[in-house]
Amino acid sequence: MFKFEVLKKSQKSNARLGKIITSRGIVNTPAFIFCATKANVRGVTIDHIKSAGSQIISSNAYHLMLQPGGELIKEAGGLHKFMGWEYPIFTDSGGFQIFSLGYGGIDAEIKGTQQLKKKRSLLKLTEEGAQFRSNIDGKTIVLTPELSMKIQMDLGADIIVSLDECVPCRVNKLYTANSMEKSKRWAARSLNFFREQGTGEQAILAVIQGGVYKDLRQESARFANENEFHGFAIGGSLGKTKKEMFDVVETTSEMLNKSRYVHLLGIGEIEDIFHGVKCGIDTFDCVTPTRIARRGAAIVKKKDLLHPSQRYLNLGSSAFEKDFSPISCSCDCYTCRNFSRAYIRYLIKAGENLAGALLTIHNVRTMNKLMEDIRESLITDSLDETIKEWLG
Amino acid sequence: MFKFEVLKKSQKSNARLGKIITSRGIVNTPAFIFCATKANVRGVTIDHIKSAGSQIISSNAYHLMLQPGGELIKEAGGLHKFMGWEYPIFTDSGGFQIFSLGYGGIDAEIKGTQQLKKKRSLLKLTEEGAQFRSNIDGKTIVLTPELSMKIQMDLGADIIVSLDECVPCRVNKLYTANSMEKSKRWAARSLNFFREQGTGEQAILAVIQGGVYKDLRQESARFANENEFHGFAIGGSLGKTKKEMFDVVETTSEMLNKSRYVHLLGIGEIEDIFHGVKCGIDTFDCVTPTRIARRGAAIVKKKDLLHPSQRYLNLGSSAFEKDFSPISCSCDCYTCRNFSRAYIRYLIKAGENLAGALLTIHNVRTMNKLMEDIRESLITDSLDETIKEWLG
Repeated sequence: MFKFEVLKKSQKSNARLGKIITSRGIVNTPAFIFCATKANVRGVTIDHIKSAGSQIISSNAYHLMLQPGGELIKEAGGLHKFMGWEYPIFTDSGGFQIFSLGYGGIDAEIKGTQQLKKKRSLLKLTEEGAQFRSNIDGKTIVLTPELSMKIQMDLGADIIVSLDECVPCRVNKLYTANSMEKSKRWAARSLNFFREQGTGEQAILAVIQGGVYKDLRQESARFANENEFHGFAIGGSLGKTKKEMFDVVETTSEMLNKSRYVHLLGIGEIEDIFHGVKCGIDTFDCVTPTRIARRGAAIVKKKDLLHPSQRYLNLGSSAFEKDFSPISCSCDCYTCRNFSRAYIRYLIKAGENLAGALLTIHNVRTMNKLMEDIRESLITDSLDETIKEWLG
Repeated sequence: MFKFEVLKKSQKSNARLGKIITSRGIVNTPAFIFCATKANVRGVTIDHIKSAGSQIISSNAYHLMLQPGGELIKEAGGLHKFMGWEYPIFTDSGGFQIFSLGYGGIDAEIKGTQQLKKKRSLLKLTEEGAQFRSNIDGKTIVLTPELSMKIQMDLGADIIVSLDECVPCRVNKLYTANSMEKSKRWAARSLNFFREQGTGEQAILAVIQGGVYKDLRQESARFANENEFHGFAIGGSLGKTKKEMFDVVETTSEMLNKSRYVHLLGIGEIEDIFHGVKCGIDTFDCVTPTRIARRGAAIVKKKDLLHPSQRYLNLGSSAFEKDFSPISCSCDCYTCRNFSRAYIRYLIKAGENLAGALLTIHNVRTMNKLMEDIRESLITDSLDETIKEWLG
């Protein structure tokens, strides 16, 4: 079962309050989807992810295909049962990983902060799919749209994504156009396979490609609008600067049939989320909240930072050596209710992994609280006040 | 506040059911004390340690002295508040770590499985205390009985231990005798400091030394019996073989004033616990349940092992690749209620730390269940049936 409902539209922007209904439960939107890429949120028991208010998590078809394999997880009763998460799951197609294998870095490419690297010799991209060698067992695998669908169906995720090619931001328009056209053909094959083999329990999203080129995005959106995808995932290169990213998100989201659900792939900074929400984005996913936690950083409201120029609170800082207050006094997470900045700083300095787990719980709760505040503000039409509260 | 009560004595052995009453709560004995050496149970949130039925945990004066320092923890409101554990805490004196610095390996020496290594040049043992260089900041520190007491008092642990020298099993009787005599003098100094500076909230244990030499153990026990320690911790070398260890534990525990509480330091194999219980040991501590968890091993009843020759279930084994049953069908821990052997095996193979956390929770619960079963069997006078149930 999959249904998406818009409950309220903002008078001031394209922001909207909605809900996604799946057989695993409801996701109130706008919502944040936390990365459990390899069928776990690294280092944290899943009960804490739920207790922190999470509605939905995401896993990755590419990684789980390589280890332990989609069929094993199917045999286990599906990904929900395998990893002990009974609520909605989103899976990504592996397209992003093809890109990673092909060009090196991931985040940096999307965000335009990294030079284009030489393609790895492992990868061969054809019309059929992406051929690569498994880093787990050395086997050669061709990830096709059909295989990506099969894996995501074996996993039993509630929301799955068509396979796309994700190109770096520095390629030229011709390359981007060809790639977008290929992604369209792959999306069509994904949808065909999905229709033929699907159980009707899952929803499929089309990835909207086209880089920073408005006409290419338009064509990608047209194709997706005209086919029976349950929703859209805005993907691919979003440009080299924040302004470019904001422009791409804004113009692309305007092109989409807004009776359907819209996801923005891989974006998770607080200001980017506010911008996305204003453009009508319903869900976001990003590795940042959990990744930076493992590196000692806490997400807090702007006013809780030590300096306005910082993005996060670096708990490893000597400033916190004897700071016996919680990460954030206004946070109700397990970590903030039970532990001080000094304790977390000590754990970081002592090399104890528990620091990462406690910070992950805090960051997950903080992102969920951000989304709760956004949803609340959409009810009361006070999004700007919420932005001010979070970003100062 | 500290009180120890014997509730029932076995008719068949020296086993006894008891309770330790502290201002942080009651510990029903026989009990297992879990290692939170550096103010955390590695990689696991403390709520899971409590949910697994734990009554008491232990931390280490030596490690916490070096990082973050006893005074910082005192300033934080004590170790309980610092690490978010409001129940009883036991701290060890650092004596064992002097030994480790002095001679190399720790467990292996106690258990007689390792050759005596050359002393590290860092260490200077005098009548005053143990001089060493901190591996954290390079400072030279002399750990004296008084300093160990001060740190354990700053931590605010409920049960603290006098400083002793812990010698390897292969030294001769003269060395052991001299060391035991020094440990007596250090215990007297520990007790003096404890009386002068104590709040009355903590209990102090004397370490019983003397290696495998009965007359030396007798002298160490005599001294401890004649002084106002709240209880005893049997420490030092317990010999080279299991038989020797069993003999030392049996003869030493018989020497002690059994109206007081008796702890056995560093022993935690199931059969050793059953033996200790029969000798009248009230509490045990050992790093094994949590350490082996991080290495992929689960503690189970003998009948749940793949082969009777194994000590643990090695979850990394390919035997579990498609085993969708829990680690143990009879276990009620968080891990067994939610995850399969196949999932844990996958996490181990994928290098995910969550495997260690889930196995730690299981092993902690299993050790607590073992102690619950032992306490139950002491009520019904059926310890031998419980031994059979666990060890086959």
